[in-house]
Amino acid sequence: MTILSSFFKKASTAFNGYSSYSKLLVVCTLSSGGLLAYSESQPDVSTHSVEGDQSESKKKKVVVLGTGWAGTSFLKDLDVSSYDVQVVSPRNYFAFTPLLPSVTCGTVEARSIAEPIRKIIKKRNAEIQFWEAECTKIDPSKKMVSCKSNLYKNLVGNSEFSLEYDYLVISVGAQVNTFGTPGVMENCHFLKVLKFRMQELEDALKIRRTVSDCFEKAVLPGLSEEERKTNLHFVVVGGGPTGVEFAAELHDYIQEDLVKLYPLVKDLVKITIIQSGDHILNSFDQRISSFAETKFQRDGIEVLTGCRVISVSDKEISLKIKSTGEVCSIPHGLVLWSTGVGTRPVIRDFMEQIGTGLYHKLFMLPIEIVEWKSNVYPIIYAQAFVFQTDRRALATNEWLQVKGCENVYALGDCATIDQRKIMEDVATIFEVADKDKSGTLTVQEFQDVLDDILMLRGMKEQKWDIEGFKSALCHADSQMKSLPATAQVAAQQGSYLSRCFNHMEQSAYNPEGPQRFRGSGRHRFLPFRYKHFGQFAPLGGEQTAAELPGDWVSMGHSTQWLWYSVYARLIGLLLLESRFALIVVVNGLHINEFVLP
Amino acid sequence: MTILSSFFKKASTAFNGYSSYSKLLVVCTLSSGGLLAYSESQPDVSTHSVEGDQSESKKKKVVVLGTGWAGTSFLKDLDVSSYDVQVVSPRNYFAFTPLLPSVTCGTVEARSIAEPIRKIIKKRNAEIQFWEAECTKIDPSKKMVSCKSNLYKNLVGNSEFSLEYDYLVISVGAQVNTFGTPGVMENCHFLKVLKFRMQELEDALKIRRTVSDCFEKAVLPGLSEEERKTNLHFVVVGGGPTGVEFAAELHDYIQEDLVKLYPLVKDLVKITIIQSGDHILNSFDQRISSFAETKFQRDGIEVLTGCRVISVSDKEISLKIKSTGEVCSIPHGLVLWSTGVGTRPVIRDFMEQIGTGLYHKLFMLPIEIVEWKSNVYPIIYAQAFVFQTDRRALATNEWLQVKGCENVYALGDCATIDQRKIMEDVATIFEVADKDKSGTLTVQEFQDVLDDILMLRGMKEQKWDIEGFKSALCHADSQMKSLPATAQVAAQQGSYLSRCFNHMEQSAYNPEGPQRFRGSGRHRFLPFRYKHFGQFAPLGGEQTAAELPGDWVSMGHSTQWLWYSVYARLIGLLLLESRFALIVVVNGLHINEFVLP
Repeated sequence: MTILSSFFKKASTAFNGYSSYSKLLVVCTLSSGGLLAYSESQPDVSTHSVEGDQSESKKKKVVVLGTGWAGTSFLKDLDVSSYDVQVVSPRNYFAFTPLLPSVTCGTVEARSIAEPIRKIIKKRNAEIQFWEAECTKIDPSKKMVSCKSNLYKNLVGNSEFSLEYDYLVISVGAQVNTFGTPGVMENCHFLKVLKFRMQELEDALKIRRTVSDCFEKAVLPGLSEEERKTNLHFVVVGGGPTGVEFAAELHDYIQEDLVKLYPLVKDLVKITIIQSGDHILNSFDQRISSFAETKFQRDGIEVLTGCRVISVSDKEISLKIKSTGEVCSIPHGLVLWSTGVGTRPVIRDFMEQIGTGLYHKLFMLPIEIVEWKSNVYPIIYAQAFVFQTDRRALATNEWLQVKGCENVYALGDCATIDQRKIMEDVATIFEVADKDKSGTLTVQEFQDVLDDILMLRGMKEQKWDIEGFKSALCHADSQMKSLPATAQVAAQQGSYLSRCFNHMEQSAYNPEGPQRFRGSGRHRFLPFRYKHFGQFAPLGGEQTAAELPGDWVSMGHSTQWLWYSVYARLIGLLLLESRFALIVVVNGLHINEFVLP
Repeated sequence: MTILSSFFKKASTAFNGYSSYSKLLVVCTLSSGGLLAYSESQPDVSTHSVEGDQSESKKKKVVVLGTGWAGTSFLKDLDVSSYDVQVVSPRNYFAFTPLLPSVTCGTVEARSIAEPIRKIIKKRNAEIQFWEAECTKIDPSKKMVSCKSNLYKNLVGNSEFSLEYDYLVISVGAQVNTFGTPGVMENCHFLKVLKFRMQELEDALKIRRTVSDCFEKAVLPGLSEEERKTNLHFVVVGGGPTGVEFAAELHDYIQEDLVKLYPLVKDLVKITIIQSGDHILNSFDQRISSFAETKFQRDGIEVLTGCRVISVSDKEISLKIKSTGEVCSIPHGLVLWSTGVGTRPVIRDFMEQIGTGLYHKLFMLPIEIVEWKSNVYPIIYAQAFVFQTDRRALATNEWLQVKGCENVYALGDCATIDQRKIMEDVATIFEVADKDKSGTLTVQEFQDVLDDILMLRGMKEQKWDIEGFKSALCHADSQMKSLPATAQVAAQQGSYLSRCFNHMEQSAYNPEGPQRFRGSGRHRFLPFRYKHFGQFAPLGGEQTAAELPGDWVSMGHSTQWLWYSVYARLIGLLLLESRFALIVVVNGLHINEFVLP
C-alpha cells in the first residue's frame, strides 16, 4: 500500500495538467471493484453529472448525439425549460425502424415511417436546437464535441463546428458489423446504417428497387435458364428477427405481386437464409424458432444453418460449413446482410480515449516511473483496457453514466450497462450494514440494507431465510445479461434518462435511489430497469410469431395485430399527434398506410 | 435534267448495296418539294409502313422505344392480337409528369404519380414484351435496334441484345438542353431526364431533399448572415410552365412548411427566376404572363428577364444582361435548370444516319463522280442536311412517319411534324384537279379537290370565293407551327398512331385520308391533328392561370380544379382502373394524395 500511494504521488506530479487522469489512475490501482468504484466513491467530483449541483441560475448545456429511438425518446419528455438543449444527428428524421423490412417490399411507404426531427422539435416550441451533422470527435477533457455537417457538398460557409457541453447524451446507435468479411461492404445490402451519409430509409428503398431490378434482369432476352435463376436468387445472411422478417416479406412480395408481373420466370425464384447458428431466431423461444423453420420449409425458403460466410463477390457468396469445414460458393442476385451490429468509429475513438488512452498516456511518463515498479504497469494496462476498449459498446453504470466520464450518458445500441454482481459486493454490503462494527449482522441491521439491495437488483420483497436470500441474490446475478440491441431498450432508456434530468433538483434533497455501498448517502435515482415487452417476428402470409412476457408465446394469424398494439403503446406518447399511431393500427389491420391530410 | 439523270445512273451504280440511299438520292435532286415528296410519290416502296401490306399471316413485329406519354398512350389502345409487340425503355414505370414539380415539394408522393409498365402490360394480358433497357442504336438498313440493359451492374448474363422490327415506334422523349453552358450538368438540378440511368422521379426526390438540406446548411452554427442567405437562394433558370410551377410550389412549400421548422432564417430566403426572354410564360396569353409576374412580385419572387446564363459553378451562377452586355455573378444554394429540351444521342445518331449519313456516303463514291459536277454536291449536302440533321427532333410527315424511313414512326418530344405549306403545292394541286388538262379548273374540278385540301389542313368547309379560299389557305399555312413539347401532344399522337395500326387492314380497301396530290389514290388515314386543350400554370397559393381553347383565359382560385379535370379527361381512359384518376381529382380539391388499398 505504501508503494502504491508513493506511486500515486509521483504519478500525480507527472500527470500535471491531466488531473482527471491521475485521479482515475489511483482508483484503478486501489479499488478492488475496478474503475467502477470511482463515480460512487467520489461523488464530490461528479459535479456535472445528473446527480450534480443544479443551483446555478445559468442553464446547463445538454448536447444529444443521435436521433434514433434512444435520442428521440429522451427529447420527447425532457423539460427543455431547465436545459439548453442541442441535438446533433446526420439524420434529420426519426425512423420507425421496426417497419423498415416492410419498406423494402413496398408494404409500407418510406415517408410514412419517418417523422422529421424539426417537426418533433416544433412541438416543443423550438426550444431545442438541431444541427444536421455527424459528431466526429468527443473530447471529454475539454467537454466538447467536434461536428461536421454531412451537407458539405455545395455548402456555403464552414461545415465544421464544435459544441461545448455540461452533459453529453450519446445515442448514436451502432453500425453494420461485417466481421471483416471481404466483399460485404461492396456487394451487400443493409437495413442498418453502413457508413457516413448512408441512411436506413434510402437503403430500404434501394433494396426495393434492386429486387425488381433482379426480375428485370432475369427476363432480358438471350439469358440461359441458369443465368435467370442466378439473377433471381435472393440470399439473406443472418437468421435474426430482421433477416427473417425480410425473407418473409420478400417471399410474400414475390408471390403476391412480382410473379404476376413476370410470369415467365416465376418458377426460377429462390430465397435462402444463411445462419451461423443451428437455428434461425435463436434469441426467441425454441417453439417459435421451430415454427418459423417449418413455415419457411413449406414456403420453399431454404434455411442453411451452421454456415459461416467467408466472402461475398458481386456474383457469388462463399460459405464454410462449420461442421465439416467444407467451403462452397453460391451464385446470387442480391445479398442482404443482417448479422449483428458493430461500433461506430467515433465511439471506438471515445472508448480508446477513456480506456487505453490512459495506457498510452503512461508512455509519456518520465521513464523512472514506468520502470519504477514494473508490475504496476500490466495491472493498469489490463484494467484500463478491459474498462472500455474490449467491448462492442460503451460501458455505463445502472444510471446510464459512461464509466470513467460521469457527465456523459450513453444509451441505445451504442451502450451497454455493466452491472457488478451483488455477490462481488457482499463484503462491502456487510461492512455497511454492520453499523456497530461487531463483525456480525443483527436482524435489524440486515433489514436496513435489504430494501436497498432489492432496489438495486429490481427484486420484489419476499420472505427469505439467509440461505434463501443468498440463493435469490445468486439467481438475480445469473439473470444479468446485456440487454438486446432493440428499439424497445433504447426507447425505455431515453424515457428513463429524461425523467432523471427532469427530477435533478428535487432528487438532490430527496434521493429516491438505493443506499451507496461504496460511498455515503443514497443514489439520487432508481437504477434503470428494462421492461421486456417480448419479441416479434412476422413470418409472411400474415403468420407471425411473438414471444411476450410471462412465457406467453403466440403464433399464427392474428399475432401481428397484437404486436403492433404493443408497439403502438410504446410509441403512443411519442407520436401522439403525428400520423404514426394511425399507420401502426391500420397496418395491423392490413389496410395500406393512410396519410392524413 | 439530262445531267442529273446521268448522275443518277452513275450514283446508282456506285451505291450498289445502298439501294435505298440511291433512290433517296434521286428524289433529293429531282423533286422540287424536297425529300418529303419521296414517301408520297413512291407509295409502292413503303411495304412496311402503316399503309403497307397486312395480308401476311405472320404477325408483324412492332418495337416501341420509350414509356413516356407517347409510348404508353400508343400501347394503351393498340390491338396486341395483330402485332408482336416489344417495348424497350430504361424506365419501367409511366410517370404522370405534370405533377413532377409537386413531388419536389412533397405535395404529391413520388410513388403516386408512377404506374409500373408491367402493371399496364398485365392489363393487356401480357401479350406485350417489355425489356428494361436503353436503345443504343437504330439501324434502319437492317431494321434492327441494339439495346443495352441499364441494370448492367451485377447482371448475370449478357446485358446487350438486338431486336428486329417491321415497324419501329420511337417515343424516347427528349433530354435536358444545357445549350453547352459550362457547369450546368455538374451543378444544376433538373426535372427532365439528364442522362443514361437518371430518372425524373429520382431527380424530383433529390430536389426535395436538397431544398431541405439548404435550410439545414443555413442554420449551422458559425455561418455569417451572408453565407446563410446564399444557402437559401433558390434560382430557377427558365420561365416556362415547369420553371414557373416549380418556383410557385417552392414558395408555398417554404412559406407554409419550412419557415415554421426553421424560424431563425425565415427572412433570409429568396427565390429568383432567370428568363432569357422579356416575360415569363411567354408561350401563354399575354394576360397570363402579366398575371404571373404581378403575383410573383407580390410574393417576393424575383423575376430577372432578358438575362442569359453563361456558366454555373457550385457556388455561383453567371449571367449576361442581354440589353447591356453586362456580366454579373449571383451566389446560390440551389439551381433548377428548366430551359427547353435537347436531342438524345441515339436520335441524333439516327438522324445523322438518315440525313447527313447520305452526305458522308458521298465521300465514298469514286472520285470522278464527286468531281464530275461540283455544283451537285452542295445541293445534295444542303438538302440532306436540312432534311433531318439541322433540327432538334426527328422530322415526320403528318402521319407521324419519319421522313426517309417509312416503317419508322416518331412521336412525342423526340419528333416534330414537318408539314409542307399548301401554297407550295398549289401547282401540283392544280395539275391534279385539272383532269381534262385544259390548263383551267372548272367549278366541278375545283369542288373535287376541295374536300381533300380541307381534310389535309384540318379546315372546316365554308363558302369561299376564289380569293377568300386562297387567303384561307394562306392563313392555314401561317398557323402551322411546330407543336409544343408537351404531354398533351405526345398522348394524342400515341393514341392517333394506335388507331392507325388497329385499322391497317380495313383502310387498305377503304382509305379514309385525303387524295394524294403527289401519287395515285388516297391516303389511308386522316393526318394527325392536335387538339389543344390549353395550357396551365399553377402560381402558388392556390392561384392558377390557365389558357383554354377559344381564347378562354382563367386566372385565380378555382382554375386549378378546372385544369385537373381537363387532365383527368385526357388520361381518364389510360388510367381508368388505376389510382391516378383519384389522385388527380383529390389533388384538385387540395386533399393530399390518397392511395387506395
